[in-house]
Formats: sequence, C-alpha cells, structure tokens
Amino acid sequence: MLMDFELGDEFERLSGQLTFIVEIDKLKNVLRKTFLIDRSRHENTAEHSWHVSVMAMLLLEHANEGTIDLNRTIRMLLLHDIVEIDAGDTFAYDVQGYTDKDEREKAAANRLFGLLPEDQKSEWIALWQEFEEGSSPEAVYAAALDRLQPVIHNYYTGGVSWRANGIVRSQVLKRLAPVREASDKLWAFAQIIIQKSIDQGLLQDDPVASHDKN
Amino acid sequence: MLMDFELGDEFERLSGQLTFIVEIDKLKNVLRKTFLIDRSRHENTAEHSWHVSVMAMLLLEHANEGTIDLNRTIRMLLLHDIVEIDAGDTFAYDVQGYTDKDEREKAAANRLFGLLPEDQKSEWIALWQEFEEGSSPEAVYAAALDRLQPVIHNYYTGGVSWRANGIVRSQVLKRLAPVREASDKLWAFAQIIIQKSIDQGLLQDDPVASHDKN
Repeated sequence: MLMDFELGDEFERLSGQLTFIVEIDKLKNVLRKTFLIDRSRHENTAEHSWHVSVMAMLLLEHANEGTIDLNRTIRMLLLHDIVEIDAGDTFAYDVQGYTDKDEREKAAANRLFGLLPEDQKSEWIALWQEFEEGSSPEAVYAAALDRLQPVIHNYYTGGVSWRANGIVRSQVLKRLAPVREASDKLWAFAQIIIQKSIDQGLLQDDPVASHDKN
Repeated sequence: MLMDFELGDEFERLSGQLTFIVEIDKLKNVLRKTFLIDRSRHENTAEHSWHVSVMAMLLLEHANEGTIDLNRTIRMLLLHDIVEIDAGDTFAYDVQGYTDKDEREKAAANRLFGLLPEDQKSEWIALWQEFEEGSSPEAVYAAALDRLQPVIHNYYTGGVSWRANGIVRSQVLKRLAPVREASDKLWAFAQIIIQKSIDQGLLQDDPVASHDKN
C-alpha cells in the first residue's frame, strides 16, 4: 500500500482504494497531442476524460442504439485512459507506438487496477477491456466520443496537432469508425467538420495516388 | 452560437450542444487552491471533476444510504463546477468570497447551461441545484467526495494549501459535514487523516480560546 500510515483492519478495502485514488492523480500529468481550445498548452488525459464523459451525458440522444446504458458508458470513459499512467499516451496516428500498445496497456491495467480490492480489480479491468474491444453498444458510443473530441479540438485550434504531425484526411476518417457506427447524426457532423478543416487548410487531403493521376 | 460555421436546421440541437462542449473547455484553465499530489502545479477544476467522479465509482460501497443512484451522482459531479468558468473557484475558506458566491454562480449557470437546448438546460440546472442544496442522498454523497478529495491532496502535499492559507482544524471539520452525513467509514477515515495532519504539523489545531486558558 502506498498510504504512509497504517489504517486498521476495518479499513482494508478503503486502504487499497485510497492508494488507487492517490496513484491516479498522475493522470493529470500525462499529456496528449491535442491542445486546449485556447492553444495555451497541451491537454492532459485526466481533463480529457472529464470532457468526453460530459459529452456522453450531452449527446446520448444522437446514439443510433436506443438502449445505451449511460452509467456504464460514463464509467468506461472515466477509467478508459488510466492505463496511460504507466503506458503513456500513444498518439492516435503513431503506427510504431501501436505495435506494442496492447501489451504495455495490459501490464499497466494489471498494476494500476491491481491496487484495488480483488472484486473491483476484476470489474474495472473488464470495463476497460469492453471499451478497448468495442464489444458493446456502450463501448462503441464511448469510443465515438473519445475519437470525436480531438477532431473538435483540432478544428478549433487551427489544426495545430494535425499539421504538426502531417495527418491526412483518410487517417482521421479511419479513426472515426466508431462515430460512424454509433451515430448517424454525429457521423454527418464529423464529415462536415472534416471538410471544413480541409477547405480551411487545417487538415491535408490525401495525396492523389499516381495511378489516379494518369 | 459560437460555432463559426453554419450547420443546417437538422443540426439545431447538436449545434447548441457543440457550442457548450467548446465553451466548457475553459474549465481546464480554472485553477483551484489545491495542488497536484506531486506538488508540480495547482489542480484545475476539470481534472478535479474527473477525480471525484472516479471516487464516486470507487467508494459507493461505503455510503450509508444503500440506494444511491451512481449515474445521478456522477452526472452531478461532472457538471457541479462548470459554473466556475464564469464565477471562478471560490476557495472553501474564503468568507468574503462566499457572500456573493450564490449570485455569481446562478448567473453563470444561466449563461452556460443556457447554451444547451431548453430541455437540457432545465435538466442540468436542476442537477446542479440538487448538488448545491444537498437535497438528495446522491447530492450529499457527491458533496462528501468533493470535500474529501482536497483533504487527501492536502495531506499528501504536506498541507501546502492549508498552511498557505492559515487553515485550522475546525474549518476543515466544518467543510466535511457532508462526509459525516454520507458515510460512517469515510468520516472515520477523515478524522484519522486530519489527526495525522495535526500531528505532523500540516494543519494547525484551533487556537485555545482565552477563557479556556484560565
């Protein structure tokens, strides 16, 4: 236990939970590639998790699936990036980083959720895996928000993160697959904001393949 | 609408919701008196909102009330401090700041939640008021976590925010009234951590009143 004082036996569960609460404070120092909308600094993963959780509350009416459990969705979004404390934020378009992302994040989940009492450890790892695998309508809807939020941030920051990393349209569209699956309305919006981004030079269109030029 | 491009009529609700999503990004720049546990900087209100929402998931078993609706609790915690975008963070022990806190926050709630479609505006303001008034077991449990989290942060940062502001034990105990109401277990823990803080010189005990000295 990381607690630096002993609690009695009657606090056994709380002691592990408190260790976890103290440990996850570190997520506030994990920086993402995206910037705050005022461009003052990079966004951190804790505040990102808050933002997408609020979006889940706000945009539920636009989900195609009519029986989404909002509580389950938000719980997934609150914990979906906690593994980044150990595994770091893997940039969405980092092909190299993605090769061992799963392995790094699984080890992180075991260590971090392993601070919790056994039953909570199992439950939280299962929720995290459900999100990662997109294995429920809630997980797909949650992923849609997680993917849409940085697109909004990129648009409002003049595409700073896209441009710095040479991202092109097809990469963004590929990342947005859960949006297409989760919500016709949000998908229609995503296509509009991406076209606006292209038109305004915030996002590059794909290079025309040589056989298309002929 | 703050959106800088027009969406068609079929996006009327989404347009207001997106304006809100962009607006609340500002909560990431509202700084609290508390520090991150590594003392690297002040905590901001967005990441604080995430932290207490995770605590709500984690500590539900310790609530005295057995029928707490976790979904309602978390939704309250996610939005409880959004008013600070306009009203600022009022330090828990700032007597002067509290004299017009209600008025400032009500105006902020009207403007900020007023960006939403009418039905959501009403619902979100009602949730925020429920939290402020502590008018349900969910609101009391949510407030308990909101009050307990800075005590944990103060303990793990050597009482930096308490000491900088000359806070004494009775002030902290008074702030913790919702913890006492919400959970015997968390209240017992809070008393232990406060006593440890006094013993280690992180928090001052109350001055002995003059008539007690005689």
